[in-house]
Amino acid sequence: MVSADPTAPPRNPHSGGVVISVDAMGGDRGPAVVVAGIAESAEKNPDIRFIVHGPGAELERLIGRRPGLAARCDIRDAANVVTMGDKPSQVLRKAEGTSMWSTLESVRQGEAMAAVSCGNTGALMAMSMIRLRKLPGVNRPAIACLWPSRNPQGFNVMLDVGADIRADAQDLLAYALMGAAYARNGLGLARPRVGLLNVGTEEHKGRPELKQAHELMPASAQAANFDYVGFVEGGDLPSDHVDVIVTDGFTGNVALKTGEGTAKLVGDFMRDAFSKSILSKFAALLAMGSLKRLQKRIDPRRVNGGVFLGLNGTVVKSHGSADATGVSAAIKLAFQLAQSGFQDRLAARLAQIHAGAETDGATPTEGAS
Amino acid sequence: MVSADPTAPPRNPHSGGVVISVDAMGGDRGPAVVVAGIAESAEKNPDIRFIVHGPGAELERLIGRRPGLAARCDIRDAANVVTMGDKPSQVLRKAEGTSMWSTLESVRQGEAMAAVSCGNTGALMAMSMIRLRKLPGVNRPAIACLWPSRNPQGFNVMLDVGADIRADAQDLLAYALMGAAYARNGLGLARPRVGLLNVGTEEHKGRPELKQAHELMPASAQAANFDYVGFVEGGDLPSDHVDVIVTDGFTGNVALKTGEGTAKLVGDFMRDAFSKSILSKFAALLAMGSLKRLQKRIDPRRVNGGVFLGLNGTVVKSHGSADATGVSAAIKLAFQLAQSGFQDRLAARLAQIHAGAETDGATPTEGAS
Repeated sequence: MVSADPTAPPRNPHSGGVVISVDAMGGDRGPAVVVAGIAESAEKNPDIRFIVHGPGAELERLIGRRPGLAARCDIRDAANVVTMGDKPSQVLRKAEGTSMWSTLESVRQGEAMAAVSCGNTGALMAMSMIRLRKLPGVNRPAIACLWPSRNPQGFNVMLDVGADIRADAQDLLAYALMGAAYARNGLGLARPRVGLLNVGTEEHKGRPELKQAHELMPASAQAANFDYVGFVEGGDLPSDHVDVIVTDGFTGNVALKTGEGTAKLVGDFMRDAFSKSILSKFAALLAMGSLKRLQKRIDPRRVNGGVFLGLNGTVVKSHGSADATGVSAAIKLAFQLAQSGFQDRLAARLAQIHAGAETDGATPTEGAS
Repeated sequence: MVSADPTAPPRNPHSGGVVISVDAMGGDRGPAVVVAGIAESAEKNPDIRFIVHGPGAELERLIGRRPGLAARCDIRDAANVVTMGDKPSQVLRKAEGTSMWSTLESVRQGEAMAAVSCGNTGALMAMSMIRLRKLPGVNRPAIACLWPSRNPQGFNVMLDVGADIRADAQDLLAYALMGAAYARNGLGLARPRVGLLNVGTEEHKGRPELKQAHELMPASAQAANFDYVGFVEGGDLPSDHVDVIVTDGFTGNVALKTGEGTAKLVGDFMRDAFSKSILSKFAALLAMGSLKRLQKRIDPRRVNGGVFLGLNGTVVKSHGSADATGVSAAIKLAFQLAQSGFQDRLAARLAQIHAGAETDGATPTEGAS
């Protein structure tokens, strides 16, 4: 049972397991769905504990309803909410006191190993940059997503899918390095294959920054222990010859949403097709198992969670419209990354490359300390 | 029967019906597939006649094998071929004497009303710009494709999908106008709804040229008789609230290939699912009709054909890997556009806007005559 006494001393979230800081607010479906996702996650994984941020009384009530959950949750009262319509600039003015700010603060203070939020992406990134700060050697942080693929692990990593609409050659190199680190720790690939997204695979194609990054990539690949496979095209995203797809946040965001939209369209057309006649309905009934397996394979909730890379701390952005299963998937991803020590390894790798670049007399990128 | 005598006088291609100029070379599958596509098209539509470009003797042989086809084809011998690996710059040096050049020449001379080629896109665009020249008021020509959609007509128009990797605000305005004209003549929409592809629908999002085009679009919409629906996202491409999606050729190309790749991935996963067990195989057999309908709905061959817009002449670029059905679809598209008088109407609309802009004291865009 949960104590409703707000003056009770906070439970120590560090007693046993990995602590994940969860923003209960800001999603399209409200805190009840986020708490349901926490409950789903808690049931599946006894090693996770939670710090949950939002309106205290409401969270006490929602969490209290779930048997055994209160003992694994530390509630932090935050009255204000960042809404989907808030511009990042507006948000920063009223950031303190929001559940989002409080969620990041737990990571900053070292109480939690990773943060999860369903809130406004732009606001979350802007606040993360202020609270957690960029890692040395990173000019532009990136958001990485997992993409269904034909390769053995069943997923690719694509980045940036929307942190920043621009990326120069140095940013693209940093994305390659961060994406490779994510693929190593999140997908268990010893030596990920990295490709640069372009409009053709020939060397003369594409924007200047792509051509420049293409030139620089082999040396970077050697230093950071990944294979560079060259330019890839939109059609290669789900292919089995690349694990990490590097692009700027404008192109990546359009590609991500186009892919999701297309998968949904084909799914809808399929449902139409199977409800056309009595025969096809009967066939759908017989094929129920197969159709469910297919649906699971392309279900965006299974891969819910864009990971913010290049910050002093792991932040997982869940879909705003995520349901309990989606929130649980985002928490699982945060847990996996926290447990693998990904954050420290990535920081070490960036520091090493950065030191190498300085030794070589190269100009350090903006934001490097 | 075809006469193998190369000195025989050319048949008058204008005698009855619409004449389409077809490049038999440059596709991945060789001239036999292109001729098969011509035959399929000829059978379906008695109003089309063809000028076919490529190695004369081989074409005589291939066309001669098809009963009745020779009488509807005028063969133009062109010994050289533009290959997929050729860079546009290389191609231009050896352009004359290629089947691609000859194909465009027929349109330029007014012998044919539209050109179709399965060849190298970059080379075809470069050559089209030299042979056909840009329409007054157009700085960058664009390639428009049809995209499966939930709207009543079943397809959207998206442009640019790869003519040029850049586009400034004025280019985006011209794309909107050209795309709207295409939707009017190709899809029969009286007042097409046009959207600008961006990473969010909020006004403050996106690159500078997008924000600028967003500001200018309402006035342009009024002058050119389309509805401007504002920013759209990748997920909106197949939606029923937009008919024409405007973007730069880099983003559009990535989106197009990502969409195609995703549809193919889902299709492959579906095949996997239905061959998993005896029960699912039986279900697939029962649902054959529905699955075939579905396949037809998302079959890229049905919408094969990127249309080059902004030139003095209609050019349809077919997929390099198109089979006979794909080639036939591209020819059908060329025929429809030729018959609708699209080219003249677009030129008139551009001239009108262009004249208006000059009267307003606005700087005419580069390439305007």
